[in-house]
Amino acid sequence: MNGPTQPPRRVPVAVGSGYEVTIGSGLLVTAAAVIAEQRVVVVTDVNVVRAHGAALVASLESAGKSVTLLTVQPGEASKSLATWGELVGAVARSGLGRDGAIVALGGGVVGDLAGFVAASYLRGVAFYQFPTSLLAMVDASVGGKTGLDLPEGKNLVGAFWQPRAVIADVATLTSLPEREFKQGTVELVKHGYLRDPRLLQVVGPDWHRGADPALLIDAVTGSVAVKAAVVSADERESGERAHLNFGHTLAHALEAVTDMALQHGDAVAYGMLYAGLLARQRGHADLVPDLLRLVEWLQPAPLPAVAFSDLAPFVARDKKSAGGLPRFVLLAELGSAYLADDVTVEEQEAAYAALKELIA
Amino acid sequence: MNGPTQPPRRVPVAVGSGYEVTIGSGLLVTAAAVIAEQRVVVVTDVNVVRAHGAALVASLESAGKSVTLLTVQPGEASKSLATWGELVGAVARSGLGRDGAIVALGGGVVGDLAGFVAASYLRGVAFYQFPTSLLAMVDASVGGKTGLDLPEGKNLVGAFWQPRAVIADVATLTSLPEREFKQGTVELVKHGYLRDPRLLQVVGPDWHRGADPALLIDAVTGSVAVKAAVVSADERESGERAHLNFGHTLAHALEAVTDMALQHGDAVAYGMLYAGLLARQRGHADLVPDLLRLVEWLQPAPLPAVAFSDLAPFVARDKKSAGGLPRFVLLAELGSAYLADDVTVEEQEAAYAALKELIA
Repeated sequence: MNGPTQPPRRVPVAVGSGYEVTIGSGLLVTAAAVIAEQRVVVVTDVNVVRAHGAALVASLESAGKSVTLLTVQPGEASKSLATWGELVGAVARSGLGRDGAIVALGGGVVGDLAGFVAASYLRGVAFYQFPTSLLAMVDASVGGKTGLDLPEGKNLVGAFWQPRAVIADVATLTSLPEREFKQGTVELVKHGYLRDPRLLQVVGPDWHRGADPALLIDAVTGSVAVKAAVVSADERESGERAHLNFGHTLAHALEAVTDMALQHGDAVAYGMLYAGLLARQRGHADLVPDLLRLVEWLQPAPLPAVAFSDLAPFVARDKKSAGGLPRFVLLAELGSAYLADDVTVEEQEAAYAALKELIA
Repeated sequence: MNGPTQPPRRVPVAVGSGYEVTIGSGLLVTAAAVIAEQRVVVVTDVNVVRAHGAALVASLESAGKSVTLLTVQPGEASKSLATWGELVGAVARSGLGRDGAIVALGGGVVGDLAGFVAASYLRGVAFYQFPTSLLAMVDASVGGKTGLDLPEGKNLVGAFWQPRAVIADVATLTSLPEREFKQGTVELVKHGYLRDPRLLQVVGPDWHRGADPALLIDAVTGSVAVKAAVVSADERESGERAHLNFGHTLAHALEAVTDMALQHGDAVAYGMLYAGLLARQRGHADLVPDLLRLVEWLQPAPLPAVAFSDLAPFVARDKKSAGGLPRFVLLAELGSAYLADDVTVEEQEAAYAALKELIA
């Protein structure tokens, strides 16, 4: 880990024309340096703007840029066609031209929403991301996915639109609710299971939103590097990128059966532990004790009180294999994921029974 | 020109992964052959569906495809966020997955709208265009531009999204109002001025919506080939693609000053004649007599009764050069366009006076 002063770390993402994710502490005040455009629209939410809006706007204006600040309500409900429509109208009234830029300052909702504004305004303008949640730093900052929800389902509308640069300032995490920090940690650790076992070590008493910046920077950098490597190899999600769904087959079913009441990180933690149980049943390396440690640290909301037979239709609805069985991402051993298309219903049931027993 | 039976013609477009525009007569009934996907949503308007909907749906269903037909109102007002939102919701309810396709059957409005549905639904699905207006065949079928209007302006929202294939069936032109056919002819001939002088020959008594299919196919093919060549060289509109704006600097001003009451083809015809007068003033080849022939054949609505001083602010608002003067596309000679950034206000005024005199 780094010493008391931490130079920013940089992770290149080789997608489209390529960009960098810069991870450091106190970066917002120097944000203007990465933005080439003179006219900028910053999209944020009413919570984040209170904590970090002034610092970012001051940085941009002191560099001589013209800045328009647009705020939305926090929460998934803002990922609507209506909010997006209000934003593109406001961007048009600001006079932003093709040579302008959209900046997302906030968590995943702001990033998805502002990203689709950038992708669609004037058929696409420059986009920059300043993620202020741990989840947005390690997950949404790489991959170029933008999205809106419809009444018919989440993320049914959107575009792949790569940012010109991403600035992850871990100092912004101190204003993040600890519960959100823990949710983001699940995806951070997930990348560890896929490719970087060092990341599994963060889970413990020293890991919290106000942790040593050196620790935060190092872990975020490692996690972003895993996602960048996977996504760079597979921009449009056909092959290896599917490994990022580790834990997500069961997670999506748990979310659906609870009508999204279970938080995503909680659901993914359960889903990874479940995948660990499936893998152990097959005689793969036993990662269950380590996965259980994550769940215990996380203290997720309880599993929904439903029988596996009630859950199974939602599991089966997830990304399916050609043979009609759900597709699971399993680890043959730590760092070695593969897609399992042949997990029988009996195997699924047995692992779910084991999961319930383990966390009872 | 071709004989009485006409095999389809094909124009390759080297943009993205590449696609073909197929031009022929009676192609709609064999449309299914070009669509690889099994689930298809056809977007059309209430006029076009009456004339051609049954033929296309029958073609698709007889090939075993599952088809959902969505219709919108004809006219520019359908290029709204609201109509697009209704369409993506309906596409979601149809159950279309990533392996499905969106088909646009109609003119420019339907193509722009359905294209943005295809670009944004599930972050992009396969798209096919079946243009049924001459303008959509020669203009919108190449370039991948999709778009919606905002109250703040036209085409402020959209995406570049290339179709997998375009089928231009000239038999559909017989149901097009003759006035629309003439409007499309202006852009067809514009491509002739830029690169293919043969296309200038179509203007005359033999050229109408019910013309010899061989003549229609040959002219549409030639015009599409010009646009394909220009766009293939310059997908995102930075350089040579700007030549396609021939006639459009004045046209946009005429449209704006009439609050869009002047039709686009009329405005472009006046704009090309105006550019011809600017070019003649500079001692370039005199294309004015030929351009005047197009205007006389077109019989456009009258020029708005405004002084050039009222028009000038709208001209100046168009794509500007670095020096602040409007940018005109001028022809040094037939087939040889260049961007003129140095056309003085005096030159602009003189040419406008000449234009008014010429068509009085």
